[in-house]
Amino acid sequence: MHAIHQYQEFFITYLESQNINKEPKNLYIPIDYILSLGGKRMRPVLTLMTTEIFDDDYKKALPAAMAVEVFHNFSLVHDDIMDDAPLRRGEQTVHERWDINTGILSGDAMLILAYQYFEQYEPNVFRDLAKLFSKTALEVCEGQQWDVDFETRTDVTIPEYLKMIEYKTAVLVAAAMKMGAIVANTSTENANLIYDFGLHLGLAFQLQDDYLDAFGDPETFGKQVGGDIIENKKTYLYLKAVEYSDAKQAQELSDLFTIHSNDNEQKISKVKAIFNQTGAAEATQKAIKEYTFKAFETLEKMDIDPSKKEVLRVFGENLMGRKV
Amino acid sequence: MHAIHQYQEFFITYLESQNINKEPKNLYIPIDYILSLGGKRMRPVLTLMTTEIFDDDYKKALPAAMAVEVFHNFSLVHDDIMDDAPLRRGEQTVHERWDINTGILSGDAMLILAYQYFEQYEPNVFRDLAKLFSKTALEVCEGQQWDVDFETRTDVTIPEYLKMIEYKTAVLVAAAMKMGAIVANTSTENANLIYDFGLHLGLAFQLQDDYLDAFGDPETFGKQVGGDIIENKKTYLYLKAVEYSDAKQAQELSDLFTIHSNDNEQKISKVKAIFNQTGAAEATQKAIKEYTFKAFETLEKMDIDPSKKEVLRVFGENLMGRKV
Repeated sequence: MHAIHQYQEFFITYLESQNINKEPKNLYIPIDYILSLGGKRMRPVLTLMTTEIFDDDYKKALPAAMAVEVFHNFSLVHDDIMDDAPLRRGEQTVHERWDINTGILSGDAMLILAYQYFEQYEPNVFRDLAKLFSKTALEVCEGQQWDVDFETRTDVTIPEYLKMIEYKTAVLVAAAMKMGAIVANTSTENANLIYDFGLHLGLAFQLQDDYLDAFGDPETFGKQVGGDIIENKKTYLYLKAVEYSDAKQAQELSDLFTIHSNDNEQKISKVKAIFNQTGAAEATQKAIKEYTFKAFETLEKMDIDPSKKEVLRVFGENLMGRKV
Repeated sequence: MHAIHQYQEFFITYLESQNINKEPKNLYIPIDYILSLGGKRMRPVLTLMTTEIFDDDYKKALPAAMAVEVFHNFSLVHDDIMDDAPLRRGEQTVHERWDINTGILSGDAMLILAYQYFEQYEPNVFRDLAKLFSKTALEVCEGQQWDVDFETRTDVTIPEYLKMIEYKTAVLVAAAMKMGAIVANTSTENANLIYDFGLHLGLAFQLQDDYLDAFGDPETFGKQVGGDIIENKKTYLYLKAVEYSDAKQAQELSDLFTIHSNDNEQKISKVKAIFNQTGAAEATQKAIKEYTFKAFETLEKMDIDPSKKEVLRVFGENLMGRKV
């Protein structure tokens, strides 16, 4: 096994060795641009790591890891158009640097390019990877649609919210790991268990994202703290706060979340106070722990060396304890 | 073998048997909408027909035909956003009936759904179909990008234009036929020959489209006659007219194609006069015939019953003689 930063390096070296910059330039330059913006490369790293968890060489998993990363970036390009987002990883988004049409078409090409990376595997592995990929990609689209739908709904339930983040975020983490398992030719049972591990970890990851958006340290958190609150996003924190509110808190929260305030600092601090008073902050922390432990439970059933289980457990604990 | 209208009926029955209308409704209703708008269903019909050309049952080809049609409609949804088109087959486009974000996301889901139709085949056929599909889909994106690029260029050459329509239109006709050949498990040689047949026929088809847009009978032509002229589109007719123009004609054409005229009727009739006088109209007719005959030449090399070659020849001749 290698360290996380080594998998990152292996992946980036592979990414940089790919000749993406083909003709027509106006189609491929934006693809090269978004793929070069960086990020933690968490999903492809998970694919490489999982292949070694199941006793095969990470090198075999590089094309599958690339497919996952290209797909993830495709979804960022199209989501950024839909969200009208100007910035991504501190740089201009594709539709902002070029235009919306470029964002649509280069995104489309990325979705197809992702599939092409599976062609490097033999037919049975190709089929298993492409099937899992299509199922996952469609779920990510469905999750994005739920997210859009929820913006204009006032009756979103917590199970609905959890389903949305499962589809929009967690299934890709789960699939990234299962692809590593498929490449390593492990048993179907192990492959399904690592999928569940990734799914629960992905849910914990997204809930942690919700939590850090409000309670992260501005010094270490990459994004603007309170961004979700400014945009009146109905996150897990918000939905739990509504659930636990008394009449007065519910009214205050409802008032705060129907305005676009001029004084964001005051709005953020008031909302955070309610998140704390109602117990929503604590409930979110609890949910993060629960999903992480559910992930750990699947490890027990897995037929691999205990030292490999330890690697996955440490990875999960780091994710749970992360500040960024 | 069946008649064209029978393949159309077989395909439409299959299409209508598919349960596309799933949750979330806002993602799938637009997909159902665009797929139900109709059209000639030429591409899926070619897939079914080709499977029977190579002595297998058209029923085996239905999922592949569906993938081709879903992909074609995906490209229409995204292209209509890029072209800001309000109408498609006489009805509202998806982004017009809903919004741009819906057009983007439902389109993305369609591209993925297309791949899923190949999952009904065994691993080797799945791989061959998905590989051909990815290559083709990427070429269609590249063709669309060239088309966008050409709008703002004044030095587009005829070989460049032919490459653009090959990628944007002809490769999908070719791939639709080759998929039918793959499903029928014919020889690689036959599959490649039918691809070439489709490619040349697809080129003839698009040049015919260019020709009919200017010289079609308003009574029978489905779209507005002169639409390309109104939009200053640099079609084969236009590029040939530029090539064959004397100084005066070149100046007049250049003037006509830099304005958005208020009097479209006058503009169309002046441009058509130049298309005739320069010999561009005749040259286009000649090119259509040449590509059709190139398609017929590939038939000679094909290892199939002469009666099957006759079916393909009649299909090509009908396409060449079409008025719509």
